Amino acid sequence: MPYFDVASSAPLHPVARQALQASLDEGWADPARLYREGRRARLLLDAAREAAAEAVGCRPDELVFTPSGTRAVHLGISGAAAGRRRVGRHLVVSAVEHSSVLHAAAALGAADGGAAESGAVGPARAAQGGVTEVPVDRAGAVSPAAYASALREDTALACLQSANHEVGTEQPVALVAEACRAAGVPLLVDAAQSLGWGPVEADWSLLTASAHKWGGPAGVGLLAVRKGVRFAPQGPVDERESGRTAGFENIPAIVAAAASLRAVRAEAADEAVRLRALVDHIRARVPELVPDVEVVGDPVRRLPHLVTFSCLYVDGETLLHELDRAGFSVSSGSSCTSSTLTPSHVLRAMGVLSEGNVRVSLPLGTPDDEVERFLEVLPGVVSAVRERLGAPVSVTAAGQGASLVVDALGKRCPIPVIELAKVIGDVPVGGTVTVLSDDEAARLDIPAWCEMRGQEYVGEERAERGVAYVVRRLA
Amino acid sequence: MPYFDVASSAPLHPVARQALQASLDEGWADPARLYREGRRARLLLDAAREAAAEAVGCRPDELVFTPSGTRAVHLGISGAAAGRRRVGRHLVVSAVEHSSVLHAAAALGAADGGAAESGAVGPARAAQGGVTEVPVDRAGAVSPAAYASALREDTALACLQSANHEVGTEQPVALVAEACRAAGVPLLVDAAQSLGWGPVEADWSLLTASAHKWGGPAGVGLLAVRKGVRFAPQGPVDERESGRTAGFENIPAIVAAAASLRAVRAEAADEAVRLRALVDHIRARVPELVPDVEVVGDPVRRLPHLVTFSCLYVDGETLLHELDRAGFSVSSGSSCTSSTLTPSHVLRAMGVLSEGNVRVSLPLGTPDDEVERFLEVLPGVVSAVRERLGAPVSVTAAGQGASLVVDALGKRCPIPVIELAKVIGDVPVGGTVTVLSDDEAARLDIPAWCEMRGQEYVGEERAERGVAYVVRRLA
Repeated sequence: MPYFDVASSAPLHPVARQALQASLDEGWADPARLYREGRRARLLLDAAREAAAEAVGCRPDELVFTPSGTRAVHLGISGAAAGRRRVGRHLVVSAVEHSSVLHAAAALGAADGGAAESGAVGPARAAQGGVTEVPVDRAGAVSPAAYASALREDTALACLQSANHEVGTEQPVALVAEACRAAGVPLLVDAAQSLGWGPVEADWSLLTASAHKWGGPAGVGLLAVRKGVRFAPQGPVDERESGRTAGFENIPAIVAAAASLRAVRAEAADEAVRLRALVDHIRARVPELVPDVEVVGDPVRRLPHLVTFSCLYVDGETLLHELDRAGFSVSSGSSCTSSTLTPSHVLRAMGVLSEGNVRVSLPLGTPDDEVERFLEVLPGVVSAVRERLGAPVSVTAAGQGASLVVDALGKRCPIPVIELAKVIGDVPVGGTVTVLSDDEAARLDIPAWCEMRGQEYVGEERAERGVAYVVRRLA
Repeated sequence: MPYFDVASSAPLHPVARQALQASLDEGWADPARLYREGRRARLLLDAAREAAAEAVGCRPDELVFTPSGTRAVHLGISGAAAGRRRVGRHLVVSAVEHSSVLHAAAALGAADGGAAESGAVGPARAAQGGVTEVPVDRAGAVSPAAYASALREDTALACLQSANHEVGTEQPVALVAEACRAAGVPLLVDAAQSLGWGPVEADWSLLTASAHKWGGPAGVGLLAVRKGVRFAPQGPVDERESGRTAGFENIPAIVAAAASLRAVRAEAADEAVRLRALVDHIRARVPELVPDVEVVGDPVRRLPHLVTFSCLYVDGETLLHELDRAGFSVSSGSSCTSSTLTPSHVLRAMGVLSEGNVRVSLPLGTPDDEVERFLEVLPGVVSAVRERLGAPVSVTAAGQGASLVVDALGKRCPIPVIELAKVIGDVPVGGTVTVLSDDEAARLDIPAWCEMRGQEYVGEERAERGVAYVVRRLA
């Protein structure tokens, strides 16, 4: 039963389990106490901090353990922004950050009365106070120049992930860090997806990560704040972890997190090569095996173990369900928005197809034959889903009139695109199809379909109900 | 090696360990995912929530798991206060709440520009906005009438612990809850110290607790919010746990927390009787075995397993160190202020002696002979510490003059009291001793010494350096 969703959460690494069990007996007491049980707990905590700091590439006194990666992000952003309140309240983020970053930035922006602003194309524009979202290219990466131009005199903090959690694209963190350094703006790097593979090779100011992403236990995040970075912890005073995160330390889990990070790093070089080849294989084979697929994310500058593709005319939830029935656990769209009806903000920012989206993220040690079996199963699963939805198998060539209107109101992704594909052959080359839709995903997926199909996306207009998307047949 | 500090943190209960280990394999995946690993994790989480809710006495959908008891308090107070912002911003707390409650209230008070106000004696007075601290009696309990009179039209939230963490005194939660209900003010009950012993039998609105206090693992707190209570979660948006606490759920720890709460409850009735008798024994024997001791806290309305006493002329840290060398792990003063030089806010609010303070909190299953051994060891340890500090063995009767001034500037607790005790016999009955001290603990301990010794505490005056404490010899 292959589990291919390590980007959501990794199974507990054997070293983590061992360390956790060993420290349950030694690590339950309060490390602030002076009696032997407290001293033992303190020793474990100190040793874990040293090990984690070494793996992160910082000093032990620069690193605290938080209850989760999300909390590390929230605390890091609020503390760093507050530390620079006199400079200003403007924040810069990439448009494809994890939701914890975007939500923390939005919360600060809202508290300050500033407006969030995003733009999927064109240079980042500045909002008064608030948050500037730097757009990404079709591969999911920010341009260092665009990022640099978003930095302002009143920018309190810049945030950039080391690699994207949905499509695996690595960000140009080192170049962005240089630009931030030059502008005197601290840079927070969310390294949640990459820390198991290696340290972030850049001049970051703050770094966050999450242990359960690398095979550590749940309940442990990391927040590193370089000496000299102005930092003012927010929220009620608490004496634990240098006052940077509140609550009793979870020492057995912290010990397990640090031990497994070391263990995972020891395997990282070899596994990176092996899994990269497996992912290259998936990237090459999926478009050969499944028609109408778009593999997204940077093919080279990417995490070794992660690949994402989208299948036209397929509903992601159904696809996941069918893959689960076939024994494969994968995820779709943004991990944090799978319960909503809006498409992933990452895919939207990239301007790529979001329907039928599948993210495959391979655990360490994934055997080759599991990947082969996935490639065997996938085509049948996709075509069964398409068949059930009535997706077009081939485009008909009959020309009927110069324009057609398709009413897809009230129909959810991927139906609007399926209806479009069914009738595009019914208009002559140069004719148009107008799709009426009130599904938010259509705004992303109809232009993406046009690009994949070599048709012209003319644009959208507000309609009496929903939106009218106009497509011109070119081929 | 007896561990008598379960009020700080309890060793992992065998049931917690078993449940934790069993769920490491089943509970690591993201419970929001639809594939089998996610569904398994969701089942475990749901079952744990039902078990915990039953033990708390609430509906499962009223209860969320937080990363710690401290976070439960922070989130509960900020969310409940924000939910009633239109009513007002005034908060009511007891003066002896856990520091997490006081700090969360202070953070809100500071954010609102209100002033915190406390009074150890007399009725609670109202501050504009801000926080009213309801005083406690010498046993550590609030008066329900005083608490009720602190409630105002603009009171957003009231907080009261079920039982005190330092002295074990139970608060009149049911009566205070009635008063809050009558005033239309929600009551948050911090049940951290008592939940293992039983549900809080009162009409509370919010309840918080911490698993590692009852033998569950670290990393799990509970926050229950009754249906109908206005609650507006603060901080960045997050979809987990009904939006009330952020970050990936720590399911193995949550499962262990719920399982151990049930297990501890099954032992609670019998152990409460047995440990109550052991604590009664300690309460009776310590003053017989050790001279100049004050046992504090309510002798009857109290937690079964916890007793606190203070030893005159003894430095708490040294006493703890010597008890640790003798094999006993106990704590002193407030668990959260042991690293500071100020006396515990709880003992201060009670107006009792803080020097040489020892808290004994017995784990479930503590054998009688460990308690006997503690009582054998204690007198020798105390007298050795006193001897080293040069404490008076008996008061001399020589009269010298009508008044004396003792310069104890720069000397830390318990030296100022020791110096006072050494010279009180040197003034005639009716004469005074003035102690100059710049140690914060003296403000509490000199009046407490007077009460224990039958001497009159005249009062304090500001001196050129420090404070002059004036004592009149009566006997």
